[in-house]
This record gives sequence, C-alpha cells and structure tokens, in this order.
Amino acid sequence: MNKNYFCVIMAGGVGARFWPMSRTSQPKQFIDILGTGESLLQRTFQRFLKVCPPENIFIATNSIYRNLVKQQLPGIAESQILCEPSRRNTAPCIVYANYKIHQINPNATIVVAPSDHVITKEDEFTNVILSAMDAATHNNWLITLGIQPSNPNTGYGYIQFDENEIYAKDNRLKKVKTFTEKPELEMAKQFLQSGDFLWNAGIFIWKLENSMKAFKQYLPEIDELFEPGSSYYNTPEERDFIEKTYPMCKNISIDYGVMEKAENVYVLSSEFGWSDLGTWGSLYDHLPKDANRNAVVGKNVMLYHTENCVINMPKDKLAVIQGLDNFIVAEDSGILLICRKEDEQHIRQFVTDVSIEKGEKYV
Amino acid sequence: MNKNYFCVIMAGGVGARFWPMSRTSQPKQFIDILGTGESLLQRTFQRFLKVCPPENIFIATNSIYRNLVKQQLPGIAESQILCEPSRRNTAPCIVYANYKIHQINPNATIVVAPSDHVITKEDEFTNVILSAMDAATHNNWLITLGIQPSNPNTGYGYIQFDENEIYAKDNRLKKVKTFTEKPELEMAKQFLQSGDFLWNAGIFIWKLENSMKAFKQYLPEIDELFEPGSSYYNTPEERDFIEKTYPMCKNISIDYGVMEKAENVYVLSSEFGWSDLGTWGSLYDHLPKDANRNAVVGKNVMLYHTENCVINMPKDKLAVIQGLDNFIVAEDSGILLICRKEDEQHIRQFVTDVSIEKGEKYV
Repeated sequence: MNKNYFCVIMAGGVGARFWPMSRTSQPKQFIDILGTGESLLQRTFQRFLKVCPPENIFIATNSIYRNLVKQQLPGIAESQILCEPSRRNTAPCIVYANYKIHQINPNATIVVAPSDHVITKEDEFTNVILSAMDAATHNNWLITLGIQPSNPNTGYGYIQFDENEIYAKDNRLKKVKTFTEKPELEMAKQFLQSGDFLWNAGIFIWKLENSMKAFKQYLPEIDELFEPGSSYYNTPEERDFIEKTYPMCKNISIDYGVMEKAENVYVLSSEFGWSDLGTWGSLYDHLPKDANRNAVVGKNVMLYHTENCVINMPKDKLAVIQGLDNFIVAEDSGILLICRKEDEQHIRQFVTDVSIEKGEKYV
Repeated sequence: MNKNYFCVIMAGGVGARFWPMSRTSQPKQFIDILGTGESLLQRTFQRFLKVCPPENIFIATNSIYRNLVKQQLPGIAESQILCEPSRRNTAPCIVYANYKIHQINPNATIVVAPSDHVITKEDEFTNVILSAMDAATHNNWLITLGIQPSNPNTGYGYIQFDENEIYAKDNRLKKVKTFTEKPELEMAKQFLQSGDFLWNAGIFIWKLENSMKAFKQYLPEIDELFEPGSSYYNTPEERDFIEKTYPMCKNISIDYGVMEKAENVYVLSSEFGWSDLGTWGSLYDHLPKDANRNAVVGKNVMLYHTENCVINMPKDKLAVIQGLDNFIVAEDSGILLICRKEDEQHIRQFVTDVSIEKGEKYV
C-alpha cells in the first residue's frame, strides 16, 4: 500500500430526494439505502481501503454529522474527520483537506470522491483509481473520472475529451476539451452520438502540490483564507481556526471554480457500474428486482398484484401492499411516503410543504 | 330512568376485515376506527346510558378481552363483564346474560346489541330503543330492529314484515314473516322493490321472561347447561362455573337458533344512520370526506393527487401520499396495509398469509 496515497471522502451533503429516508438529521450517505447492511459512506470507505492506508482516509462532512461519521466508521481517528461549520460546496472543503494533508505529507497523491454514489464493479473501480493515482503522481495533471454514458441522461454533467491526446501508459486517460453542465435532452443525445463525451462522476485524482497550485491560481480568495492556518492543522487549534475561517469562504464547486478553468485536466474513461443515486429511479435501477420488477428493501414486505415498484421499509416493519404499479413506497423514522415513480421530482416540494406545515423535525 | 331496563352489549368478536387496525389482540370494537377519540365499544356504551342505569349495562366478551373492557369502560364493575372462555356465537352468550340478569331482576326488559356498529343519529336510536323496550315490556314479543334498506346490499340478512299486523302504539313495529340470510344481488333487488323487507341489524329487545322461555323452547340443550348455575351467578363461583360450562355449548347464533323459529317475533322498522361497519367500504361511507372524496383518519396525512381513498394512520404518523385513487391505506402497531378498495375482500387472505409466513403475532 503506497503511504503517499490519500483519500478525501466528501460526506457533507443534505439530500432531500430520498426523503423520508434521507433527512437533515441523516442524509443519504449515512443510510443503508441499498439494504446491504452498510451505509453508502461505509461502502465508500471500504472501497478506498484497497487504495490507501486507513489512516490516510479523511472524511469531510458538516459539523452536525461528526458523531454520525464516528458511529459509522468507528476505526478512524477524530483528526480524520474534517468538519465544515457551514455549507460551502466542494471547493472550500478540498482546499481545507489539501492544507491538512500537506501538513502530514507534502508528497501526497489524493483521490477526492463523494460518499453517496453506488459502484457495483468494485475491482474495476480499484483498478481505475490506482491507475489514475499513478498517472497523477507522475504528471502534473488534474484527473477526473468520466463514465461511459449508456443513455442521454440529462441529470449529469458531461466531459468532452480530445481523442488526440491520450496517455501512453493508459489509453483510457485523455485530455479534457470541455466541461458541460447538465444538458437538454437533444444536446445529450448529440453528446452520446459524438462518442467523445463522458458523464462527470465528480471523482478527482491529483498530486497534492498540483491541486494546491491550481487553487492558488484559480481560487486565490479561498486559498488565502486557509493558508494562515498552516501551523494549526492537525493540532487542537484546528477546530477553532476552521470555525472562524470556513464561513468566510465563498460557496463554489470544484468543477466551476477550478476544473472548468484549468488547462492540464485529464479524464479517465471508466465503466464500473456507477450511479450517483440522484433519484429514486436510479436507485431502482441498482436494486435487485423480483419477478414483477419490484425492487424491495425490507424483510417483511408482502406484495400482491404489485409491479415496477421501489419499496423501502424498515427491517421489522410488516407491510402488505396490493394493487400498486410504478410507485415508490418508503418509510423511515415513522414517516411514510407513497408517490408515483414518474412524479418523483415532486418529492422536494413535499419536503418543503412538510417543513412548513408540520415543522422542521420532519425534514 | 327505568330500573327494570337492562342492556347486554356483545363485544366478543374477532374481526379481521379491518386488519391491521383490528387484530386478535384488539378487535374492531375496541378501536377508535372513526377517529373520534372513542372506540366503537365506548360509543355503544355511551348510547345505552340514555336507555338504562349504568349498573344495568353488561358487556359480554371473550375472556382475553376482560382487561381491555375494563380499560375502556373504567366505570363499570367487574361483575358487569361477562367473559366467554370460548367463542360460541351469540346464542350461548345471551342465555348466560339472561340467567345472570334474572338473578338480579327477574322483571328486566333487555336490549341486546353488538358493540361494533356505527349509529349516526343517536337521538333517533334512543327513541327507537325506548319504544321497543316499552312494547317488549307490555307484550310477549321478541323484537328485533330492522333498518330501512337504502340499496340492495348483499352483505346483510333481510327481515320480511307483515303489513297487516302492526302495533297500535307504534306503527313502525310489525310482525315478522320471514328471516332471510344474505341474499344474491337479484334477490336483494326484489326485496328492495317489494317494500316489505328490512336489513337485520342484530339488535334484540325483549322481556327477560319471554327470552328465557324462547330459549327453553328452541335451544333447550343450551338452556340446560346454564340453569344449574343459578346459585352461582353474581357470586365468586360464577367464573368457575362458566369456564366449565361454556365450552360445552354448541356454536349457534340467536337468529338461527331462536328468531327464525319463534312465532311471536316483531320488527321495528327504523332509520338511525346505521352500519355494521363490516367492510372498509362501509367505513368509508360513514367518515367525513375531503374535496377529493378522501376519508382520512390521522392528523398528519398530506395528500397530493389522491382521490376516493380511505386512509387511517396513527395520530402522530406523518404520511405523504401522492397519486392514489380508490385505495385503502391503513397502519396500526407498525403494520402497513395498502390495498385497492375494490379488492378489500382479499384482506382476509392477506391476514391468513401473514399469519402463516410471519407468525401469529401480526394477526
């Protein structure tokens, strides 16, 4: 295991789309949403144990989830949890992690990854990450993972690569031409046809010094906030410093703030059964189905004349469901949701309504 | 209040149709199924407080529900609860009650009524019962209540009356010609057209001595079992005697065993917003509806694009329901049921399946 390899898992999100399972008090990354016995965060952590030593894995999360992370990953040290006192998107969180890791090992090569994605081909994932880590160690590139698109999905960002600039040691690694935000359907179809567009998976690999250089160049106003803390990182003073500094950062994503502007960006075209589990529909795609195409999580669910549903019940809950076609039925913490799968985009509105009518404790 | 007036409320049933709210451990009569804050038994008891003194109201129930009755009717004495050690239908329970009341007041006039019906016009109900009690006191009739039918319901028994034998003091009271079990639809339609058929509400009114005489004549084998206990009723020995005697009775209903055979049977044609709440459909009819014809019990139910549903949630449960039309959604004690209203007859089968697959504790 390469001692210079580090990992930053981003676990600060507050997803409402999987409500009522995902809640402010327990967002998606902390949930066993696939019914496997492990939360998405726990599975993500397990995956990176094949990439770097456990003490080199850092979890960046919101301060309110500090204890949740400790509970779910009891083996890690307090100092491996980076707590964000306010939500500022991905860029500030990565700068913070960079400075903290720099204090430990300035020669680090780092993979930064979300905590709430699903990856079904784990061996292929390890292979891809290790190849990217190696390439990042020996080149001054900022590498991002691109997913071979299977359909013109309008829920993802796209990355266009340059067929003429391919890494000799791994021909899956190509120079990036452009980043594109979530496209309209027609454009997504053209992307797919052209053959040189990939889905943006939001997973980044780089040598620490190259990452720090890029932030200094493209987001100096954020870098300047974290640099004065150099003597505090990994000391008892770190928390105080971050609590003062973090809220002053602007809210900006790494994609928008750095990747879309930098010149030396490469994408590794990969295929490891990836989904960002952004919607119930994408969760449905990744769950095993019964003969009537129902995806069921829960040990005591009895179905009659029910088809194409995604059902997520607490382990001990007995549910008898008859006559539903193409529905989401989900329960968590005493909250029940029944919703047509095709109307899942309304769930955000339901959560807002619940918050207004019943109070914050339900969201 | 007439001290000779007595009431026997039959509360021994174990209904499965309202599962999961009605369960062996808490059948329909003990549930606040209308969401009013009172169980059907409590409402029934309240109704009869307008007919006779509280100490003259007896509750016949299964032994396993003794404590449930005490909890729900804390004002009544232990000796007012008649516990059936085994299920033997209505006839044995009424003979038992007759002997017990005879020991207290041989001049009693008694109304016998189920505990799990709904009655919306309570004043009219009191009026009808008092008129029937008065008629029964002054005539040797066995009186039953008939409900003016509003549709050719095949779920009820029917009573045909004789237009030519009408009680002078109350022209709603007429001699019975025939009792008919639940008919086929075509026959039910003919009954309705003929104008001389009423629904059988299973509510009986008679003078104690006439009731005892009828049982001696038509069900002597049951009467003979209870008569030897005359010195035990309302003493500490009663319970032992009943526990030995009751299981020896044959299982037979008062309708089949006595009413269909006796000559002196009268029916009082009434209309007091009655339903036996035998199905979710009949419950739905008796609940208030919202603008989309949903009948909702539960304070935290939020509906979107949902119509014609009957929804029964625990008070504190938050449920967000979208896209359902004509469904039952019910939850109790951690069990959820979702079922098309038109398929409610399958609920008995679900309960059987649950009992086999998940165990008796769920039914």
